[in-house]
Parts: sequence; C-alpha cells; structure tokens
Amino acid sequence: MSSASRTVVIVGGVAGGMSTATRLRRLDETARIIVVERSGHVSFANCGLPYHVGGVIEARSALLLQTPASLGARFELDVRVRTEAVAIDPAAHRVTLRDLASGVEEEVTYDALVLSPGARPVRPPIPGIERALTLRDIEDTDVLVAAVAAAQGVEARGFDDESPEPATAVVIGGGFIGVELTENLVHRGMQVALVEATPQVMAPLDPEMVAPVHRALRAAGVDLHLGRSVTAIGVEDVTLDDGTVLPAALVVAAIGVRPDTTLAQAAGLRVGDRGGIAVDEHFRTSAPDVYAVGDAVEKVDGLSHEQALVPLANTANLQGRRVADVIAGDGGTDRPVLGTAIVGVLGLQVAATGWNEKRLRAAGRAHRAIHTHPASHATYYPGAATMALKLLVDPETDAILGAQGVGREGVDKRIDVIATAMTAGLRARDLAALELAYAPQFGSAKDPVNMLGHIDDNLHSGLSACIQWHELDAALASEAALIDVRTASEFAKGSIEGALNIPVDELRDRLDEVPAGPVVVHCAVGLRGHVAARILRQRGWEDVRNLSGGYTTWRAGTS
Amino acid sequence: MSSASRTVVIVGGVAGGMSTATRLRRLDETARIIVVERSGHVSFANCGLPYHVGGVIEARSALLLQTPASLGARFELDVRVRTEAVAIDPAAHRVTLRDLASGVEEEVTYDALVLSPGARPVRPPIPGIERALTLRDIEDTDVLVAAVAAAQGVEARGFDDESPEPATAVVIGGGFIGVELTENLVHRGMQVALVEATPQVMAPLDPEMVAPVHRALRAAGVDLHLGRSVTAIGVEDVTLDDGTVLPAALVVAAIGVRPDTTLAQAAGLRVGDRGGIAVDEHFRTSAPDVYAVGDAVEKVDGLSHEQALVPLANTANLQGRRVADVIAGDGGTDRPVLGTAIVGVLGLQVAATGWNEKRLRAAGRAHRAIHTHPASHATYYPGAATMALKLLVDPETDAILGAQGVGREGVDKRIDVIATAMTAGLRARDLAALELAYAPQFGSAKDPVNMLGHIDDNLHSGLSACIQWHELDAALASEAALIDVRTASEFAKGSIEGALNIPVDELRDRLDEVPAGPVVVHCAVGLRGHVAARILRQRGWEDVRNLSGGYTTWRAGTS
Ligand SMILES: Cc1cc2nc3c(=O)[nH]c(=O)nc-3n(C[C@H](O)[C@H](O)[C@H](O)COP(=O)(O)OP(=O)(O)OC[C@H]3O[C@@H](n4cnc5c(N)ncnc54)[C@H](O)[C@@H]3O)c2cc1C
Ligand SMILES: Cc1cc2nc3c(=O)[nH]c(=O)nc-3n(C[C@H](O)[C@H](O)[C@H](O)COP(=O)(O)OP(=O)(O)OC[C@H]3O[C@@H](n4cnc5c(N)ncnc54)[C@H](O)[C@@H]3O)c2cc1C
Ligand SMILES: CC(C)(COP(=O)(O)OP(=O)(O)OC[C@H]1O[C@@H](n2cnc3c(N)ncnc32)[C@H](O)[C@@H]1OP(=O)(O)O)[C@@H](O)C(=O)NCCC(=O)NCCS
Ligand SMILES: CC(C)(COP(=O)(O)OP(=O)(O)OC[C@H]1O[C@@H](n2cnc3c(N)ncnc32)[C@H](O)[C@@H]1OP(=O)(O)O)[C@@H](O)C(=O)NCCC(=O)NCCS
Repeated sequence: MSSASRTVVIVGGVAGGMSTATRLRRLDETARIIVVERSGHVSFANCGLPYHVGGVIEARSALLLQTPASLGARFELDVRVRTEAVAIDPAAHRVTLRDLASGVEEEVTYDALVLSPGARPVRPPIPGIERALTLRDIEDTDVLVAAVAAAQGVEARGFDDESPEPATAVVIGGGFIGVELTENLVHRGMQVALVEATPQVMAPLDPEMVAPVHRALRAAGVDLHLGRSVTAIGVEDVTLDDGTVLPAALVVAAIGVRPDTTLAQAAGLRVGDRGGIAVDEHFRTSAPDVYAVGDAVEKVDGLSHEQALVPLANTANLQGRRVADVIAGDGGTDRPVLGTAIVGVLGLQVAATGWNEKRLRAAGRAHRAIHTHPASHATYYPGAATMALKLLVDPETDAILGAQGVGREGVDKRIDVIATAMTAGLRARDLAALELAYAPQFGSAKDPVNMLGHIDDNLHSGLSACIQWHELDAALASEAALIDVRTASEFAKGSIEGALNIPVDELRDRLDEVPAGPVVVHCAVGLRGHVAARILRQRGWEDVRNLSGGYTTWRAGTS
Repeated sequence: MSSASRTVVIVGGVAGGMSTATRLRRLDETARIIVVERSGHVSFANCGLPYHVGGVIEARSALLLQTPASLGARFELDVRVRTEAVAIDPAAHRVTLRDLASGVEEEVTYDALVLSPGARPVRPPIPGIERALTLRDIEDTDVLVAAVAAAQGVEARGFDDESPEPATAVVIGGGFIGVELTENLVHRGMQVALVEATPQVMAPLDPEMVAPVHRALRAAGVDLHLGRSVTAIGVEDVTLDDGTVLPAALVVAAIGVRPDTTLAQAAGLRVGDRGGIAVDEHFRTSAPDVYAVGDAVEKVDGLSHEQALVPLANTANLQGRRVADVIAGDGGTDRPVLGTAIVGVLGLQVAATGWNEKRLRAAGRAHRAIHTHPASHATYYPGAATMALKLLVDPETDAILGAQGVGREGVDKRIDVIATAMTAGLRARDLAALELAYAPQFGSAKDPVNMLGHIDDNLHSGLSACIQWHELDAALASEAALIDVRTASEFAKGSIEGALNIPVDELRDRLDEVPAGPVVVHCAVGLRGHVAARILRQRGWEDVRNLSGGYTTWRAGTS
C-alpha cells in the first residue's frame, strides 16, 4: 500500500479522534482521512458542557470549536456526523459505517483504523433510572438545558410573587462532573441535593482534604448526602437508602464513566482487566492496523506501571496526536499517566496528581504524608488565601507518589509544578531547591512547593518525625502526651481533647511541664509544632512527633 | 570547640541572615547565635516595600514579619538592630560589632561567621544624585513615603480646586524595582516619568517580549524614556542626554544593585569577577569558618556553570537555610541558579527563567526560539487572557535554556513549570507530555506548556522550520516569498510589507499563486502558519519557514 493512497478511518470526532485526524493531515497530505462521529457534533468542548448548563458559558456556539465544514476546509478531512461505526472486520481491514439518519450503511476498507470512542456515563440499575439525565455530549447538554428550564417553569407554576420556590434537582454522584453540575445547577437558582455513596465527594482526594469542599457545598445551600445511595427514582422525587425522600424535578446521574468498548469488543479486540481497550505503547490494539486512544483505552499508571483508566482530556489529546505519528511512521509512544486533575467548585480549586493515601494504603504501599496550609502568596500582600496541600512520598526512595491541593487560589500552579517534578523523577526533597518565580503577588520566597521539600527533607533525614491525624488516637491511647504549642487564645477557641497548652514561645521555660516519654506536639498547621519538636528533641525527649498539618488537618479529618 | 558552646555570628538580619539563624537554632539548641543588623529592623519584607510606598500594602507593620523580641522568644536569638559589623579578623576568628546609636564597639569571637549583607542600590555618578532616593530597607521606605507625601503637598499647594496638578516623579531605571516603583507612584496619583538607558525595560526579557509592558506603562500615563540616560538631577527637574528636562518633585534611582562586599573586602575575603563574595558550594568564603550567602555572593549559573549574580529572595532564603546545615554539620550544598523572576506591573505578569536570547547571542551559544500567544485558559470559558510565551532551546541537545512570559493571567504558573522542568533536566520536547491539571478555568487540554513542547518537537525532528521576526528582512531580501495565511479581514487590518495573502483554508486551491523557491509563511501567532507550512512542504516546497509567533511577535519586535 502506498502512502499516497492510504485510507485512515477514525471513530470518534472529539478530543482523541480529531487530534489524530488533524495531526495526521499535517504529516500526510495525501491520505484519505474519514472521521465518523455518532453524535451530531465534532470537536466540541466536553469540559465546558456543565458550564453551559449553568449559563456561565452563555453561547452554545462557544462549545463547538470546529465543524465538519471547517475541518474539511483546513484539513481535507471527510468528517461525518450522525454516523456510527457499527462493525469492524479486522481480518478484512473493513469497517461498517452507518448513517444514523438514513440507516444506510457503507463498508470502508482501511489501511489504519483509529478508535477514540470515549467513555459512557455509568447508569446504575436503580428503579426509575430512565428519568436520570447524563452529560457527555452536546445533545445531552441540550436535553439538560431544556430540562432545567422545564423544571424551573413547572415548579414556579402557581406562584405569582417574586420569589417562587426554587426548582429542585438531585445530582447522583460526587465526582468531578457531579460536583461541577451541582455548582452549575445552583448557579441556575435550583435547590440541589447531591447524593454520594462514599463518605466524601471527589474520590481522587483523601477525606481530610475534601472537608473544605463539603463546607463550600453546604454553604452554597447544597443538600449534601454522603455515604448514601439512591434506591429509587420516582416521578418527582428520589429515595435514599436511609429512607430520605428528596424532591427532584430534575435528576442527573454522574456516577462516573466506563470506556465505550462496544464496537471493539464486538470486533474481538482485547479488552483489559480494567475494562478499557488494551493497547501497547504505540496504541496498537490486538488487531493489526487498529489503534485506540483516549478515554476508551487502558493506560499505564506512572507509579505502579499497571493498567489504569484515566478519562481526562490532556491524555486523550496527547494520545491522539501521538497515534498519528505512529500511523505516519514517525514514532509516537505513549507515556504513563499520573491522573493529574483539577476542578473548580464554588470558588475553590480542587486538584490532585498521582496516588492518594487511600490508594497507597489499599495497595499496602509504604508512604509518608505531609500536610501544609500555606498562603497562595505572601501574606503581607493583600488577597492571599490559605490552601491545604498534601504530599505523599515514598519513605525509602523519597520519590513523590502524589499531591493534592484545595484552596481559592494558586492550587493549580502548585499541583502542576509537582506533577512536572514527578514526571521528571525529582525526589520530594528536591522540591526545596526549585527556583520558582517569586514576587509578593504570586508566591513566597519559600514557595509552598519549596516548603513541602523542606518538610520532607526533615522527615527524610530523621531530623523530625510526624504523626497523622488518623494516628493520633492510637498514640494518645499508648501513653503519648499531647502538647498544643499554639497561643492561649487559639487554644481557647478549640483544642484536641487531652492536650496540654504550652505556647512554643514559652516552651523552653516550661519544659518541666512536659511529661517524660513519647510526646506529640501540634500547632495550627505544623510550623510552630516543628519548632517545638526540635526544641524537645534537643532537650532530651527522644520520641517527639509533630502532628502533620496541625489542628487544621486534624479537624478536617475528624469532623 | 564543643557544639554546646559555639558562637555563631550572623551579619545581616533579613532574608539570608535570619533564615540561617532560625534554621540553625532548630539544629542546635545550645549555640550562641548573634544576629547583627545595621538598619533598624530585621526580617522585613523587602519585596513588599514598593507596595507600601504605593499604599497597596497599607500598614507599615505588615512589612515587619518578625522583631528582635519575637525572634528572641521563639529562637533564643540575640538579635541586635542598628548594629554594624565593622571589621573581621579572620585569623583570630573575631568580628567587631558597633552599636550605631552609642558608637560602642564589641569584639566577638566566633566559631562560625555568616555574612548575609545583601546588596546596595547602585548610585550612578550623576550631578545631583544626592537627591535621588533609593529603596532597600524600611528606613528607605519611610523616607520615600514621606517624600511622596511632601511632593504631593508641595505641588498641590496653591491649588484649591478638586483636581490639582499631580506631583511629578522621575524613576531612573526600568528593572524590576524601577517598574514596581513606577506602578506604585502612579497608584499614588503621581505623574511619573521612567527613564531607562537601554531600549527596553525589564532586562531579563527580550525586546519583543516587553512590548506589552511598554504599552501598559504608556497606557497608565507613564512618560517612558527608553534608550535615554540622565545627565543631571536638578532641584526640581531631571535632564536627559537628549536635552529633555523632566519636572521631578521626586527622583528615585533604581538602576540595579551591587553586592555589599565592604566588610568582606576589608577583611581580605576573596571577591569574584562579578563583584560578589566568592564562596564554594558549601558557602565557605576564602577565610576559614566564614560563610556567606544571599545577594552578596556569587552563585553558579545553571547553564554556563560560570559565576553569576542573582539577587533574589528564593535563593537567598534557601542559601540561608543550607548554610545553617553546613555549620551544624548536616551537609548543605548550594544549587545552581536559573534566575527565575517575576514582577507584577499594571495588571501584567512579567516572568522569566534561565537565559534570554540577548544573552545567548552575546555568548555565541546556539539556540532556537519559540514564540506563542496562548490563552491563559480555554477560550470558551469566560475570562481567558492571551499571554506571550517564549522558549529558548539548545538545538543540539534539546535542553531548555530559558523561558519568558507576559500576560494578565497564568504566566506565573507556566514559568514555574518550565523552571521545574529545567531544574529536572527535561528536554524541551518533553514538555509536550507533561500531564498538567486541566479544567476550562485553569488551562487547556493542551496546556500552553504542552504546546511549546509540540512546537519544539516539530522543530527538533525537522518536520517544521521557523524564522524569527528579526531574521525576516534578510530572508525577504534573499528572495524568499512571504505568504500571510490569515483571513482577508485580518490581513486588511495590518500586514507585513510584501506579503501575499492566501488564507490557510484556501491554500490547497491556490498553490499556483505560491512562488517556487524559499517561502516564509505566517499567521497571527504561528498555529495556522504551521498548518500552511506543512501543506507546502508536502506539496513540493522544500524551503518553508513559519514565522515564529506570527504577526503578533513580528509587530512586537519591530514596532
Ligand atoms: C461533562 C464533562 C466534563 C469534563 N471535564 C473535564 C475536565 O475538566 N478536564 C479533563 O481533563 N477532562 C474532562 N472531561 C473528560 C474529557 O472530555 C475526555 O477525557 C475526553 O473528551 C476524551 O476524549 P476521547 O476522544 O477519548 O472521547 P470523547 O471526547 O468523548 O469522544 C468520543 C466520541 O466518539 C463517539 N463515538 C463513540 N463510539 C462511536 C462509534 N461507534 N461510531 C462513531 N462515533 C462514536 C462519541 O459519540 C464521542 O463523541 C470531561 C468530560 C465530560 C463529559
Ligand atoms: C524593593 C525591593 C523589592 C524586591 N522584590 C523582590 C521580589 O519581588 N522577588 C525577589 O525574589 N526578590 C526581590 N527583592 C530582592 C530580595 O529582597 C533579596 O534577594 C533578599 O532580600 C536578599 O537577602 P539577603 O539576606 O542577601 O540581603 P537583605 O535581605 O538585603 O539583608 C541584608 C541585610 O544586611 C544588613 N547589613 C549589611 N551589611 C551589614 C553589616 N556590616 N552589619 C550589619 N548589617 C549589615 C543590611 O542592612 C540588610 O538589611 C527585592 C528587593 C528590594 C530591595
Ligand atoms: C481542536 C482539535 C480539533 C485539535 O486541532 P489541532 O489542530 O490538532 O490542535 P491545535 O489547534 O491545538 O493546534 C496544535 C498544532 O499547532 C501547532 N502550534 C500551535 N501553536 C503554534 C505556534 N505558535 N507556532 C507553531 N505551531 C503552533 C502545534 O504544534 C500543533 O501542531 P502539531 O500537532 O503538528 O505539533 C481537537 O483537539 C479537538 O477536537 N478538540 C476539542 C475537544 C476536546 O479537546 N475536548 C476535551 C477538552 S474540552
Ligand atoms: C521568616 C524568617 C525569619 C525565616 O523563618 P523560618 O522559621 O526559618 O522560616 P518559616 O517561618 O518560613 O518556617 C520554615 C520552617 O518551618 C517548617 N515548616 C513550615 N511549615 C511546616 C509544616 N506545615 N509542618 C512542619 N514543618 C513546617 C519548615 O520545614 C522550615 O523548617 P526547617 O528550615 O527546619 O526545615 C526569614 O525568612 C526572614 O527573615 N524573612 C523575611 C525577609 C525575606 O525573606 N525577605 C525576602 C522576601 S520579601
């Protein structure tokens, strides 16, 4: 087959698929490139959909980044919307395309076939689930926008004063999309209940990290039901497993997504244990000349090197570009995934990369956790906001295993820097020496990322030891004394039961009050605790641990 | 000497010095630690001073992060303000301290001496320079605040309507501090002229990158005199070398800083060619047990491994901490500097790391430059702002040599990510695969940093070739054709002389209009130019170059 005549068929015309098509054209002017897309649109901004539902992105057209016509003009792509790839015959190198409007089918012989079919929202088998809407494409968005309008119309009916009861919505699932939808329905003026089966929203973060997110949701009037599942969806309500009945003019299911492997499986392509299409590092499926990328495929986890599902746009776009390189013969290798992700919710930035502690613990992987509560920028410059950061480190190798952050500002930057450090193989203590851009509006002379490195350095060298919020009870039960080194007025506003208050600045004069034996010290966030721990260690206390993240993290974890 | 009795004297009580003192105490409870500071304050926020002058940081007390008393209480430091170290006898391990109020001197025998005397503002030998104020410490700030008030009082005198003529100020020097001061004096309502001897402000950036900064300054009413020097400072004016006389109730000199080596030189310590105290990688000066850190010392450049001056707080603080580790016997090694820096000016973030093109060119170092103008976040989400980014790369090794960014939002993050990548030794094309946190409020599925990696990948592999704005004239003179692939309406609003307009989407149909031979293509920023260049290259044009950064960078560079 000569390159001049090769036909490449791409299934799925959004992030992965269209990135493949455009890059391939830049590499190969003469290939016949057909992109088929089941929905009515290509190259749309999936990640913007919730914000159009909320009216934050006002114009629907803003979501449509390209059209079949624009892609035809610029890239000579044969883009067919409302067209589904319904069957593949790998041996014959043939794919069957069905025009969904007419039902007409066409068989196309390909030299290469790229699958980027994405993922589908999970629809749990709950009675009444038919009524629950999901959000994946433009059509879903149109339905949801109409449903919001209808719900608001219906609920407002019968009221003629200026403050009708707000329309009710129940969002099932507290993942990224569920939380985004919740915010956007609130933004539309709806009364929203969010139901999440686990005890916390935002599974990529550990429980003590999401406390501010729970607070923000509640403060915005969201009726949060954690650790609860939906048992039935009625015509105008939703019933939970604790018997609660929530009024629900609108029900949205956002319980997660599953790789769309229908077509691949029907064609006998190998699907991995995690449920995604199995590909090698050059995106090759088990069938010759059939490639797959994006949400539909299994990736390689950057830490365990095991298969993983990471349905995110950065990786989908990159894989799309790289599979084009493979097809054009220019190399193109996949890279492992960290799962770096962020969501904006009610003014908070919530971000994570790598593994969280729950996962490390479940995998039995040794780790140490570092909690801090730094300011987004120098506190003496107006507008600084406190964030919570968490770093997870391999205690043996000092490798960075993961990081999480929550705050109003500057979280995105710190997570990106840490993700970069992880990719590059920097050790945790190397973060101390990063030369980050500092002026008072943007950071601190010791940036929060540097500070994580300093703290890690102390733990790694054994200069300091720390204890986690969830280990405190056991330590206190086994005779450790707890010293709260905050000021008396901070102590008075709330303290940990059993703590003895000796402000750090008085510690040297009051050493006789500190019991012999193991000691746990804590302050508000960990900094003064570190100073106090160093004093005690040098003054003869051998077993001194500083409560990681101080009272702030402890409260977030235990409340 | 037993550690229980060691005496450590630290000269300079701010970023480097006080970081040494506090860390040392955490490592050594029993050392006698004396910190002497010539000015009246320690641990103040140098970087905040301009903003107190401008009234952005309202409370003067916000600048004073610690006091001798607070440092005494927490760290048992013997902190002496208004005390100068006036002589060192290295052989005798003795330093002479003078109480500046009483004039009383004391000789202290040290086990270790740490110098962190910082840098001093350069005062050029201009007639009348005595009247120019400089800004380094709290006392300078007080003087400047008073001078602003006086100038405003004087100029306003005699007016009793509600809009008196604004008081005039001349800022000499367009470096970081000069620009910050300019902004802050504008913020105070002054009429400010900024005089800079080179053709651009912000020397760490290349000329085409600072065009937006010049625009912003002028838009804020700043009277910008580039490529001009001050020849005389009069009682109420300033004269420039072109004869211009600028009214100046207030004159501020911000021409840069020079390491304060007075004490070190008097003691015979070795000073390097760059004018800073010479230290080894453990901060040891040429005298035994005398260490030096911070703005006063020469660092090792991360790219050339030659000596360099980088008077910035991140490095000063880090060195302070690490020299304490050295003294305590716990290691502590310096790291090379990239010179990562940022400044906020009139709503713009202006940042850089590593080398700029001017410096690479001067050093005869091979490099390629990449210009982009990405959005701070997905353009379909409200509030995205365009930034200019520039990446400098070693064409042989693909090592990242430097980066610069200017824009209203998100520049800090990209520069920090690139600085991290540089420290970690990632190659430029590795930036493509970084897994950065993406949601529409924070970035793009292909983040601007990823995009730099893609572009570099194309240049590195030879898939694309580019030409710089300053190379265009020569290329056109040697017969290259220039094709502007923007739309006709963009072309109509302004174009490069001699360009032929063939919109990229029409290019395949109008190939007969493209002259044979070398071709330069360009669009607004480089993206469509890349698409067009790939079309032409594959359609038989062998020598096709894409104008880096497109029309936008060309205009910035040539205007
Ligand atoms: C509401 C929402 C918000 C999101 N927010 C973010 C975010 O903030 N950040 C982030 O990183 N990621 C986000 N994502 C995820 C991101 O959109 C995906 O990771 C990315 O789009 C995956 O690209 P893909 O090409 O694999 O799949 P998609 O972009 O989903 O494209 C797959 C396409 O294939 C089509 N298709 C499937 N099967 C066939 C077939 N047989 N024939 C023809 N066409 C077919 C589908 O109709 C679909 O349009 C979000 C996703 C959603 C739904
Ligand atoms: C106005 C301004 C804005 C700045 N903005 C930024 C910024 O945004 N970002 C950034 O990274 N950096 C910035 N810097 C630079 C930063 O402040 C310095 O890099 C840092 O403070 C250097 O620390 P140092 O300890 O070396 O010196 P300093 O912090 O200057 O401390 C040195 C101290 O030593 C004292 N001293 C000197 N000699 C003696 C002696 N013989 N006896 C006793 N005391 C002595 C001096 O009085 C001085 O207070 C700024 C500096 C200034 C002045
Ligand atoms: C937009 C879309 C069609 C991809 O189009 P694309 O042309 O491949 O991508 P971009 O428009 O980002 O342009 C990138 C190309 O321009 C080049 N480029 C960008 N800026 C450049 C510049 N200043 N100079 C030179 N080249 C530049 C890049 O190198 C890249 O080319 P390459 O792949 O050959 O290296 C596809 O990503 C898509 O459908 N996106 C919408 C869906 C989506 O991403 N959803 C998830 C997130 S909401
Ligand atoms: C503030 C100053 C006195 C330094 O004090 P410091 O106690 O060394 O520094 P910080 O208050 O930042 O605290 C850092 C220490 O607390 C530790 N720490 C911080 N947060 C912690 C946490 N959550 N848990 C445990 N430890 C923590 C760090 O590891 C570090 O200790 P280490 O050095 O022993 O590793 C000094 O930097 C200074 O004078 N600054 C003002 C001047 C200046 O910096 N100017 C330039 C910029 S404007």
